[in-house]
Amino acid sequence: MSPLADDERIIEGVMTTVAPATADAPTIARVNIAPMGPIVNAACTRFVLRPFKTSTTYQNLKATGEGVFHVTDDALLIARGAIGRVDPATVCLRPATAVTGLVLADCCRRHELRVVELDDSHDRVHIVAEAVHSESVRDFLGFNRARHAVIEAAILATRLHLTGAEPVLAELDRLQVPVDKTGAAAEHEAMRLLRDYVTTWRDAAP
Amino acid sequence: MSPLADDERIIEGVMTTVAPATADAPTIARVNIAPMGPIVNAACTRFVLRPFKTSTTYQNLKATGEGVFHVTDDALLIARGAIGRVDPATVCLRPATAVTGLVLADCCRRHELRVVELDDSHDRVHIVAEAVHSESVRDFLGFNRARHAVIEAAILATRLHLTGAEPVLAELDRLQVPVDKTGAAAEHEAMRLLRDYVTTWRDAAP
Repeated sequence: MSPLADDERIIEGVMTTVAPATADAPTIARVNIAPMGPIVNAACTRFVLRPFKTSTTYQNLKATGEGVFHVTDDALLIARGAIGRVDPATVCLRPATAVTGLVLADCCRRHELRVVELDDSHDRVHIVAEAVHSESVRDFLGFNRARHAVIEAAILATRLHLTGAEPVLAELDRLQVPVDKTGAAAEHEAMRLLRDYVTTWRDAAP
Repeated sequence: MSPLADDERIIEGVMTTVAPATADAPTIARVNIAPMGPIVNAACTRFVLRPFKTSTTYQNLKATGEGVFHVTDDALLIARGAIGRVDPATVCLRPATAVTGLVLADCCRRHELRVVELDDSHDRVHIVAEAVHSESVRDFLGFNRARHAVIEAAILATRLHLTGAEPVLAELDRLQVPVDKTGAAAEHEAMRLLRDYVTTWRDAAP
C-alpha cells in the first residue's frame, strides 16, 4: 500500500534555505544546501517536506517560511550533500526570483517555495509549501542506472545510525555493479566518497 | 572496472525506427518502438547502440541508417516496451525533422540519429550513430526511486531466458518497496504488468 495519492511522487533533489538575516552575515554565509525528498503533486506546485527537527533546513524553513527545491541530475552533488560534504563556497549560487534566498545556478529545474503549513509536533516535521516561481534551467540527462544507484547509496549513508555499517557496505557492493556498467567518472567518485564515509563511520564507532 | 570512457554513460530510453518503405504500407504501419540503452557521450552527440541481431531495431537501422532516440521519464512506456506491449496505434507520433521517421510526441528530449558505423559480425551488433537533430520537449520529472525501480524491473524482464523466473520475482518484491514508498499510479501499473509478464512466462515454461 502506498502512502501517496495516485498522482503524487517523491522526488529526490536539493534544497537551499537561508538562516534569518543578522547584521553581520551576508546571505552567502547563511545558506544551507541539503538533499531533500519531498512529496510532489503531478503539476509540481505543492511540496510536502519532512525534514528532521534537528536539521538546518527545518530551522531555516520555520524561521523564514521560504526555500528553493532543485530538480537535478547531479547525483554527485546529492551524494555530497547526504554526507555533509557540500561547501557552499564551492557551489555557484544566484539570488532567487520570488523568495529571499539563493538558488543553485546549475540544476535542471528549480521551484521557489513558500511554506503554507508547518506542523512540528512530531520528530519528523510536516511542512506544506507552494511553488511561487518555477524555472527550467537545463535538460535532465535521463534514466541512468549509475546515477540512480548513487542516489540509493546516498540514502543508505544517511541511515547508518539505524542500520549499522555492514549491511550498507554490502549494498554498496551490489550498487557498484550498475555504476561500473553505466556510469561516468562523477558517479565513480560519488561511490568512492560514500564508501569512504561509511568505512570511516564504522571505524570510528566505539 | 568500467567499459565506458570517463564522460560516457548508458541512458535508458526509447528508440523509434521504421522499416524500409514499401508500396502499400504507410510509415505509421512500419514504425517500431523499443526500449534502448545506448552509450552516450557527455554532449549527447554520439550514440553507440547495441541491439540484438534478432531485433526489429537492428533490422531497421541496418536498412535505413536512421532512427530516433528519446530521453523520457515515462517508466511505464519503457516497461511496456520491454515486454512487447507497446501498440504504435496508441502512441502519439509525429514526423521527424531531419531523418525519415517518426518521433514520440511525448518525451523529454529526442535525438534524431544517423548511423555512421555498423558492425554486425557478432551477436550483439555495434552501431555508432550521430545526432543530426536534437530537441528538448518537456522537463524530466527528476530522480524518483519508483520510476527507477520500474526501469530495473523492466531490464530484468528482458533477461528471463538467462535467469529464469524465480530470481526475477524475488527482485520484483524488493523493487516494489521503493515503488510503494515513492511512486504514483503509473509506476504501480508498470510493476503489475511486469509481474504478470514474468508469472505468465514462468507458467508457460515446459
